[in-house]
Amino acid sequence: MAYIELNNDLPGIRGLMAYRPDTAYALNDIAEVLLRDDNNSLSRGERELIATYVSYLNDCFFCQNVHGAVAGHYLNCNIAQIDAVKHDFNQTDLSDKMKALLTIAGSVQKGGKQVSTEQIELARETGATDTEIHDTVLIAAAFCMFNRYVDGLGTWAPQDRQFYVDRAPQRAIDGYQTSVYK
Amino acid sequence: MAYIELNNDLPGIRGLMAYRPDTAYALNDIAEVLLRDDNNSLSRGERELIATYVSYLNDCFFCQNVHGAVAGHYLNCNIAQIDAVKHDFNQTDLSDKMKALLTIAGSVQKGGKQVSTEQIELARETGATDTEIHDTVLIAAAFCMFNRYVDGLGTWAPQDRQFYVDRAPQRAIDGYQTSVYK
Repeated sequence: MAYIELNNDLPGIRGLMAYRPDTAYALNDIAEVLLRDDNNSLSRGERELIATYVSYLNDCFFCQNVHGAVAGHYLNCNIAQIDAVKHDFNQTDLSDKMKALLTIAGSVQKGGKQVSTEQIELARETGATDTEIHDTVLIAAAFCMFNRYVDGLGTWAPQDRQFYVDRAPQRAIDGYQTSVYK
Repeated sequence: MAYIELNNDLPGIRGLMAYRPDTAYALNDIAEVLLRDDNNSLSRGERELIATYVSYLNDCFFCQNVHGAVAGHYLNCNIAQIDAVKHDFNQTDLSDKMKALLTIAGSVQKGGKQVSTEQIELARETGATDTEIHDTVLIAAAFCMFNRYVDGLGTWAPQDRQFYVDRAPQRAIDGYQTSVYK
């Protein structure tokens, strides 16, 4: 049960968003632009994977399962494959560019100053553009917000991971701006 | 110099926002709703103080000075008084409610799961409402994003702290949605 009276029984960030629609709109706008905007050279699946990895590092069960399932939907991966990325992406068959971007995201999760010039240079050598580096840092930073919001207010989350997998295709269709109402 | 080519010489988050207006709009919308919306029982100064404290804990020079100066403007405090809050708010004459909310904000900075039932109960005992607790957690979480964005991309910041104090009155008039252009 959440730390505050939400007057609804929605899980995770959805309960918080229904409680406070004014902030929900702005938060969903960030998720829409960062994760779904088609004017982006990172695929939706790649961006969801960055969000999933950071949510895993922040130990946020709700976010890592919501976004892990959506990433799996886009990338045609099952839960085990998404888990393998979370646990040790260097041992997976992700591209060198994605590995370099996930390394940057992992540093951002620890703190902004943990990102190094060497990590940026390595990402560039693998073909990452400035905008891709920018978006990776901002997605990682944004999930340091979303994860803290969800867990800092003690929200509940369905424990059956299949729940998230089953919902992912519809979430991929609906996007995030509708998530308050579903 | 920032890690990526911003094509502008604006400091801190302003350089990043000018570089990527699509994400800037959504980010500024969050700042507007959380820090400035008049439909809030926490004053603008109190909300800016929460943002300042979290930015201090995250060691983000730009954000702690921008928001510290704006907090000082609203609360009629000088830099030394704002610094005293950052360094040990329990030794200041802030209200018990603000001390309890800053304690929660400090836990959010460490991680969402660091917030305890006891901290929430203490805040309630000092008169904090559920919405004030909600907004405190979300402001703290949002600045864990803003701080990581600013430092994770290696932006520069004016080192003269008076620079921020001098700009604060105009920022208080203009708000954040205009910050890309000024």
